[in-house]
Amino acid sequence: MTTQMIILNGGSSSGKSGIVRCLQAELPDQWLAFGADSLIDAMPARMQTAEGGIEFAADGGVSIGEDFRALEQAWAQGVVTMARAGARILIDDIFLGGAASQRRWEKLLDGVDVLWVGVRCDSAVAAGREIARGDRIRGMAEAQADLVHEGVRYDLEVDTTHTESLTCARTIAAHID
Amino acid sequence: MTTQMIILNGGSSSGKSGIVRCLQAELPDQWLAFGADSLIDAMPARMQTAEGGIEFAADGGVSIGEDFRALEQAWAQGVVTMARAGARILIDDIFLGGAASQRRWEKLLDGVDVLWVGVRCDSAVAAGREIARGDRIRGMAEAQADLVHEGVRYDLEVDTTHTESLTCARTIAAHID
Amino acid sequence: MTTQMIILNGGSSSGKSGIVRCLQAELPDQWLAFGADSLIDAMPARMQTAEGGIEFAADGGVSIGEDFRALEQAWAQGVVTMARAGARILIDDIFLGGAASQRRWEKLLDGVDVLWVGVRCDSAVAAGREIARGDRIRGMAEAQADLVHEGVRYDLEVDTTHTESLTCARTIAAHID
Amino acid sequence: MTTQMIILNGGSSSGKSGIVRCLQAELPDQWLAFGADSLIDAMPARMQTAEGGIEFAADGGVSIGEDFRALEQAWAQGVVTMARAGARILIDDIFLGGAASQRRWEKLLDGVDVLWVGVRCDSAVAAGREIARGDRIRGMAEAQADLVHEGVRYDLEVDTTHTESLTCARTIAAHID
Repeated sequence: MTTQMIILNGGSSSGKSGIVRCLQAELPDQWLAFGADSLIDAMPARMQTAEGGIEFAADGGVSIGEDFRALEQAWAQGVVTMARAGARILIDDIFLGGAASQRRWEKLLDGVDVLWVGVRCDSAVAAGREIARGDRIRGMAEAQADLVHEGVRYDLEVDTTHTESLTCARTIAAHID
Repeated sequence: MTTQMIILNGGSSSGKSGIVRCLQAELPDQWLAFGADSLIDAMPARMQTAEGGIEFAADGGVSIGEDFRALEQAWAQGVVTMARAGARILIDDIFLGGAASQRRWEKLLDGVDVLWVGVRCDSAVAAGREIARGDRIRGMAEAQADLVHEGVRYDLEVDTTHTESLTCARTIAAHID
Repeated sequence: MTTQMIILNGGSSSGKSGIVRCLQAELPDQWLAFGADSLIDAMPARMQTAEGGIEFAADGGVSIGEDFRALEQAWAQGVVTMARAGARILIDDIFLGGAASQRRWEKLLDGVDVLWVGVRCDSAVAAGREIARGDRIRGMAEAQADLVHEGVRYDLEVDTTHTESLTCARTIAAHID
Repeated sequence: MTTQMIILNGGSSSGKSGIVRCLQAELPDQWLAFGADSLIDAMPARMQTAEGGIEFAADGGVSIGEDFRALEQAWAQGVVTMARAGARILIDDIFLGGAASQRRWEKLLDGVDVLWVGVRCDSAVAAGREIARGDRIRGMAEAQADLVHEGVRYDLEVDTTHTESLTCARTIAAHID
């Protein structure tokens, strides 16, 4: 059976985007990539200040409101439709709700062949990479490093602490049908 | 009936993105925005060099191949699903095929309430704005200014030649149910 | 005598960057462009939270501290050196201190041939363009529209309210020796 | 004596920018950062197509013309002036000419206290990171990995192959007076 979607879950600055770009470069087919960042870009800027939106606290905490959740849910349905329509889809997500976030995806995925990938990174290393990026609120990497994996079931886990993005991508690619 | 999607069509540098951001800021609900630029961002970088992808010629011409078209079609189905799932959706697109591009959308939109908006801009003015942006291949604005509107039917047209994005957005907003 | 520097002053969202890119495209020589945005990019990210740095208030107000001012002063000396060394230099600046900001530049410019350009834009129009950009704190355009021109002496003024960037650039280019 | 400038030299995708952002975050003073990327941003876009400019070949080769070199030289003089004027300056550069590039800097640096830092990265690892970034022409990392260090004398070398940016930055910071 053909893998229709790859869903990567990991904390902020764990290296998901780099892996996604390597997968897009290395996989023989052309895969579409979406994720938490592109979803937020698609939302109104005021979603980051409005009640019900998404709030990034100065200490790296992230709070999700009901309006954000509703748009995210419709977005996820649309992304799954793209996969059913024949596009191969890469998702990089941050399961702030751990297992509950995975269940929200699973409810939409009936009959879709998904490869679930956990992207781990040691929290101190991720925190250092957050500083090196320079464009993220400090504290998110550390706050999310373990939290997002709680109770989540994977087909495959990679760890970017000591392994390059491209190597992780090739490991994942070997699991694609 | 509630407007579920607004589809804006106009040539490169006609001012679609500015209008979209104003609509997101001004409309009382939170609307998700997607378009030609975010679709290309979601594709592998090599889509711009691969056969079957999208080719930007040095003179501003754009050629679309079959692989690009297939992903675009699946993407459009997904975006319409988001609207059916309750998200209000803004699309800024460039109908390189004119009426044929509109028909491709229409086939997917059965029962969805769409507002079709033409975004016009005098080709010389758009060409000047292309220079002022500095990040686009020169020639696209002029090549696309009229082409993209051929045979397309609109509920509403705005013209950014002498009218600001925010004013255009307010005109559009007045047509939303 | 050869114009060595063009210093454009105008409020946020008055259209300075677009004019600069048009000047770089239209002028026969290759001009280097620097300005308030590239200076802030060169500073540590924490300059925007540290005491003594630059503070962007939620209402569009901007406060400059002593550390920011000291780096800015050294930066301006360096930019003038580039002009003396033979590079033609475009500056887009925001004279938050009006005439006092101009005097700070003038003290460094002995013997350098400068064209001073005021970039005006009606405050309501600039505020609308700020919304259309989507990446700026709202309120800066309106707060700065008149303030930055107080007491400043220009060789030339352009107004982007009803005039395109490229046209403004060509007006400026006609004043270059 | 106080270190006035830190000049980091390394090939494309060797990790210079990440180290610079970590240094800006970690060093107690506020340092201004400039480099090859910000210099190219300051140039007209057409510098990348004009004769005498900079040419990025499809295989990752980079050719520098006389106009580029002249602007770069004036820019370097300006940056050194900033250091003499009291700003602490971080430079990330790519010495395409190896020792000759260093000599061009040295001629400008009389009496300025500089820390010369070599940023090494295994060429295969750098090539992988180039893919993960997704915004660079492939081949530059490999072509430049060794070339840029030929004959260059350093006070200190770091290697990002197995060492994080933040750790490299702390090693460098320990050498600052």
